[in-house]
Amino acid sequence: MKLIIDCMGGDNSPGANVEGGIIALQKMPGLSLVFSGDEGPIREEIEKNGWTGGRFEILHAPDVITGEDKPTDAIRLKRESSMMKGIKLLRESPDIDGIVSTGATGSLVAAATLRIGRLEGVFRPAFCPILPTMNGGIVGVCDSGANVDCLPIQLVQFAVMASSYMEHTFGIKDPRVALLNIGTESEKGDDLRKEVYKKLSTLPGINFVGNMESRDLLSGKYDVVVCDGFAGNVLIKTTEGTALQLLKKIKKDIYSKPIYKFGALFMKKMFAEEKEFMNYQRYGGSVLLGTEKIIVKGHGASDKTAVAKCIEQAVTMAGSNLSGIIAEKIAAIPADEE
Amino acid sequence: MKLIIDCMGGDNSPGANVEGGIIALQKMPGLSLVFSGDEGPIREEIEKNGWTGGRFEILHAPDVITGEDKPTDAIRLKRESSMMKGIKLLRESPDIDGIVSTGATGSLVAAATLRIGRLEGVFRPAFCPILPTMNGGIVGVCDSGANVDCLPIQLVQFAVMASSYMEHTFGIKDPRVALLNIGTESEKGDDLRKEVYKKLSTLPGINFVGNMESRDLLSGKYDVVVCDGFAGNVLIKTTEGTALQLLKKIKKDIYSKPIYKFGALFMKKMFAEEKEFMNYQRYGGSVLLGTEKIIVKGHGASDKTAVAKCIEQAVTMAGSNLSGIIAEKIAAIPADEE
Repeated sequence: MKLIIDCMGGDNSPGANVEGGIIALQKMPGLSLVFSGDEGPIREEIEKNGWTGGRFEILHAPDVITGEDKPTDAIRLKRESSMMKGIKLLRESPDIDGIVSTGATGSLVAAATLRIGRLEGVFRPAFCPILPTMNGGIVGVCDSGANVDCLPIQLVQFAVMASSYMEHTFGIKDPRVALLNIGTESEKGDDLRKEVYKKLSTLPGINFVGNMESRDLLSGKYDVVVCDGFAGNVLIKTTEGTALQLLKKIKKDIYSKPIYKFGALFMKKMFAEEKEFMNYQRYGGSVLLGTEKIIVKGHGASDKTAVAKCIEQAVTMAGSNLSGIIAEKIAAIPADEE
Repeated sequence: MKLIIDCMGGDNSPGANVEGGIIALQKMPGLSLVFSGDEGPIREEIEKNGWTGGRFEILHAPDVITGEDKPTDAIRLKRESSMMKGIKLLRESPDIDGIVSTGATGSLVAAATLRIGRLEGVFRPAFCPILPTMNGGIVGVCDSGANVDCLPIQLVQFAVMASSYMEHTFGIKDPRVALLNIGTESEKGDDLRKEVYKKLSTLPGINFVGNMESRDLLSGKYDVVVCDGFAGNVLIKTTEGTALQLLKKIKKDIYSKPIYKFGALFMKKMFAEEKEFMNYQRYGGSVLLGTEKIIVKGHGASDKTAVAKCIEQAVTMAGSNLSGIIAEKIAAIPADEE
């Protein structure tokens, strides 16, 4: 198993990316990595961490793509960047399974789609991040931002891809797939939602449970949430933002009165656990479903543990033949009558 | 000042609606109300609460519209419902300023738009609920579900209407208006967002501060968030859902260990305040902006305090000549060159 680690472009790059890679190398003896990025700092990090176990190469790529770069420009003009050189190597190397990046999302999607290519029949790849549910489970949200404008067939494919992903990477049997909507009744929503609802209702091989409202995302009632990338982006960022803001407020309020501070002394561990629970990085990265090779996008703020988790996720995916399963299921979607 | 209270269709109707009305009557001597709904139970509630101060009428309307009713059917077929009879009376009575309802949202929007009519120049009315921010302020989200498919001009009008609302009903000077998007950079998002961004950037009389990400909704950096009704619905329901689920989880975790339970004894008041803080009902209802008369939609789960708060909100709006201000500002939006 061989993966590329894009070592630039994250908030904690290259340190967190290299360290995360070393953690993964220590944990998985069958793994080897290509660190893509500025060679000097990468080599320094490896030495600093005392890794002498080998199983890595360095792909020297001194340039960095940022969120400010337009994706189409990034692809054309930043060929010496860690992301574009990594993607190029991934395309040219049959022995490399995928790439893990904490860099600019838009550029990663564009490069993966144009340079790596889609699985046969896939209209557009889509992101599927994982969130924790309140009963200790997880839920996948697809798409969360790769496709801001969507046709009905895309959402149907998101359902099929994410359902396969949750089943074959996380072992969730017969995942419950819901359509994000503004109400649970079957005729709710805009034309897109109505059309997708109809298609998913009759699609074989998928456990479609109907519309869901965003307030039930964390309820544990659903395994896959299907949505366009705009709404999905709003959904996951609102969840993340609300949880963080609320925990921050509770912390502030605790310090507002001595009696609260006293009580909180006994609950330190609990509050730390709540914060950790809502820390999405712990659940791995956002996988781009529907591409020929494995693309895992870690949060821009990823630390070394988060990067290591993303690498583990890519390894599990590679071992599960997810691409083959998705391609097969996509081919089985009945064509439109029109 | 005279308002209609739709007394049916909420989770706690008619009790909460009538009681909320009585609280408002007690508080505001210049107010009179029309309770629309099943006369027997309404009269019972009034007697049970011992209200003898008059200033109310009862509009007997025994039928109820539910979320299951298709709005277009509800308007045509449920003429004896509390909502439709209330809307009809509102239209026919120059002395009545508005209606407060906790009933089915879709039917209320349809009836208000078709029977009450829009302010001149308004393309479509839009909901603007109010959320608390973490620094003690508030933020208005427009639209939150009345318009699932939107044209650019609609979002521009939402910005103008909501900005006027926040300024003239809540006294926020020069409200900071942001466009909900998947990133803060100016070229982010779909065609709709790009077009609206361009229009808002050059629109006079509005304090447009650019794109915002949903994770910053509660940050206190914005006074108005502009979005299509689908994304807005996802935004507010996710915020509400995440906060409630997280507080529920904390409560459950407290009971999981004796030491946490002990610590929490000293923090009871704080946790009650956090819950109250995230209780949207405390911030009033969702106002439908752009209609000829005042339409306030309370949460379906509204209790009497929430209903009273919605009534107060309607009274404040009526006193501020908001309709006149909105009509004037809408007329001042430059027409498209195309």
